[in-house]
Amino acid sequence: MKKKPALPPSPFAPRTFPTIPPIDVGVSALSAGLKKSGALDLTLFTLPPTTQIAAVMTTSDCPSAAVQWCQSILPTPPRAILINAGNANAFTFEKGKHAIKAITQALANKLAIEPSSIYMASTGVIGVPLAEQHIIDSLDALCHQATHQDSPHPWADAAHAIMTTDTYAKGATATYSLDGQSGTIVGIAKGSGMIAPNMATMLAFIFTDAALPQDQLQRLLKTHTETTFNAITVDSDTSTSDTVMLCALGHKPLTNKSHIDAFSQALRNVMHDLAMQIVKDGEGAQKFITVRVTGAQTQTQAKNVALSIAESPLVKTAIAGEDANWGRIIMAIGKARQGIQQEKISITINNHPISKQGRFVGEPHEHAIEKTMREPAITIDIDLDIGNAQFTAWTCDFTHGYISINADYRS
Amino acid sequence: MKKKPALPPSPFAPRTFPTIPPIDVGVSALSAGLKKSGALDLTLFTLPPTTQIAAVMTTSDCPSAAVQWCQSILPTPPRAILINAGNANAFTFEKGKHAIKAITQALANKLAIEPSSIYMASTGVIGVPLAEQHIIDSLDALCHQATHQDSPHPWADAAHAIMTTDTYAKGATATYSLDGQSGTIVGIAKGSGMIAPNMATMLAFIFTDAALPQDQLQRLLKTHTETTFNAITVDSDTSTSDTVMLCALGHKPLTNKSHIDAFSQALRNVMHDLAMQIVKDGEGAQKFITVRVTGAQTQTQAKNVALSIAESPLVKTAIAGEDANWGRIIMAIGKARQGIQQEKISITINNHPISKQGRFVGEPHEHAIEKTMREPAITIDIDLDIGNAQFTAWTCDFTHGYISINADYRS
Repeated sequence: MKKKPALPPSPFAPRTFPTIPPIDVGVSALSAGLKKSGALDLTLFTLPPTTQIAAVMTTSDCPSAAVQWCQSILPTPPRAILINAGNANAFTFEKGKHAIKAITQALANKLAIEPSSIYMASTGVIGVPLAEQHIIDSLDALCHQATHQDSPHPWADAAHAIMTTDTYAKGATATYSLDGQSGTIVGIAKGSGMIAPNMATMLAFIFTDAALPQDQLQRLLKTHTETTFNAITVDSDTSTSDTVMLCALGHKPLTNKSHIDAFSQALRNVMHDLAMQIVKDGEGAQKFITVRVTGAQTQTQAKNVALSIAESPLVKTAIAGEDANWGRIIMAIGKARQGIQQEKISITINNHPISKQGRFVGEPHEHAIEKTMREPAITIDIDLDIGNAQFTAWTCDFTHGYISINADYRS
Repeated sequence: MKKKPALPPSPFAPRTFPTIPPIDVGVSALSAGLKKSGALDLTLFTLPPTTQIAAVMTTSDCPSAAVQWCQSILPTPPRAILINAGNANAFTFEKGKHAIKAITQALANKLAIEPSSIYMASTGVIGVPLAEQHIIDSLDALCHQATHQDSPHPWADAAHAIMTTDTYAKGATATYSLDGQSGTIVGIAKGSGMIAPNMATMLAFIFTDAALPQDQLQRLLKTHTETTFNAITVDSDTSTSDTVMLCALGHKPLTNKSHIDAFSQALRNVMHDLAMQIVKDGEGAQKFITVRVTGAQTQTQAKNVALSIAESPLVKTAIAGEDANWGRIIMAIGKARQGIQQEKISITINNHPISKQGRFVGEPHEHAIEKTMREPAITIDIDLDIGNAQFTAWTCDFTHGYISINADYRS
């Protein structure tokens, strides 16, 4: 059995982790021994009592114990979020539930809070009981660190600690301005394989100093998830653990519609940034692919066409091979069965026209198209010309790297 | 740009093409120069005037010109079927229609039949106009061959001529017995990539000496397609050209229910045989995978769960890596969103128990499971334990070979 080597970093890896502005969240991360490599694998966020939480979670019929636990306590105001990597605590049933009960009780005692104010997320191998004692034994050190904030880069540590096959840590921030007052949004995420709507196999934790009612927070999170985390796909596989949490710490009230709009836009920027970082770190990714569908009758129709293209192994292998095989794009549009009219379809790749209302017009641009396929970023524009709705999906190419990561080495 | 090398044959390639019993069909195949390699690429079947035809075709919104042509003439009794490989004549619009008109008219003149009794199928590259003159120029030789049957292996030639990325020719036969009288069913098929329900990206042409009314023939073909050609997937991509045709030559009437049942069973055997040959020749296939779902509430529920597993890149790469990663099977069951109850799921792999009603029971069998993953055939049994319906899907593993075929060489 071959040993799993370190993965080469994605060509899209950012050079540095973003600088995270001050925000009233206790952050700590350490190694509890759940990852065989000894890397960071346990993260704690502690939150002020004024915090409200919103969450969007996997739609899988086989959700993890952590997902079920969170669903049972939502929308209780959160005081802590505990995240482990290395084990998904999924398909573990009574053992999984018992582990969560023991861990949240132990953490509640240490922090003098209620267990039902502690949210959890787990990512890693499915079907193996969680080594709960490893986690419980680490809580003292974790809580100490969260209180004292003695790490120079606690957010980067946290972003590393939630990683699985990710090749880089993912963080994003944005500010919003409100008549001279400004506020902050901060987020981290993980995800690389098992990435599909709904949702991407991913975890994301987003924090803001804003104050919003829980129901409004939930609405904003859900709306923006549709066009960010639910618009990316790496391999069309949906995980048991997907979790996006948004915590509003309650310090800066958003009082009128224009305040909320400014916040909403900044929130979407953070979510979009994190989603792009996930898809650019897709397992084996060498190309970043944008699929924009316009001229649809409804957004759902546009989304189904866009995702059919973004999920097609034949489209994604063609792009890996730098081949402008637009016949495969036609195939993928057709298989979506969205009642489109093929004679109206126009296609461009990186703005080079390929097909215009059903006619192949790529011949004069053949050299330019061949050249543009060698770019690291490929944008496919599809105009269905039957309406005014649109949707954009993002994916990566399908390479030998994906097969290597998922087939060449045993789990 | 690298030149496309000859593909290595699938490890499941049969040693010989089956011996085809005599049946009243004129068969001929030759090279019309549509495949760059100069291999056989044009096939003609001629049929007696008593023939009835049934067909099942792609559900794509972008069907090829040949599919649209066939749909426009069905169920006119067929006198000929003309098939070309090397060009799908899809997304070609007026040019594609014009090509079919010119070709069928030329062939009709030569055979002294109506153009509307000539069915067509095309497979190959999408979006490129069909070189119709190459085909028209070959019709004389093709008709001569069909009449004189001077090839020693006309069926094997035909099965070769319809191939694209297939690594072997696919043929099957069966006989049915009716109170001492016996009849024959003969079929050929192609398909290797762009294989998904509905339908597999495939062509299949099946002939029988039986006599059946057209509506009954259509019903039987549709019923058996559900559990054969529509139960296989290689890459979840659906083509623009999928076509299964069933021709009953009308020589041997099937008069009562037991006669029809015997015929129906033999027909299913041929369709199943051809479907298995397609999936075993899936692009890059090294493993043949059977996914059997039992204990479902409905056949549709069982089918959706089975196909979610059979289409999952993560399940298929795990099997390529000979890794009994049953967590990915759980993931794939969950993502199907069929309202199953995860605590009831039982899983075996090649009859080795992995999970029983939600508990992991694989530990004592770990060595045996590890060993069985090295077998070329892997059968995954899922018991949902919530009903009595079932469905079986077939697929192959997802290997570097698939990426090589679809990404390493330009089309």
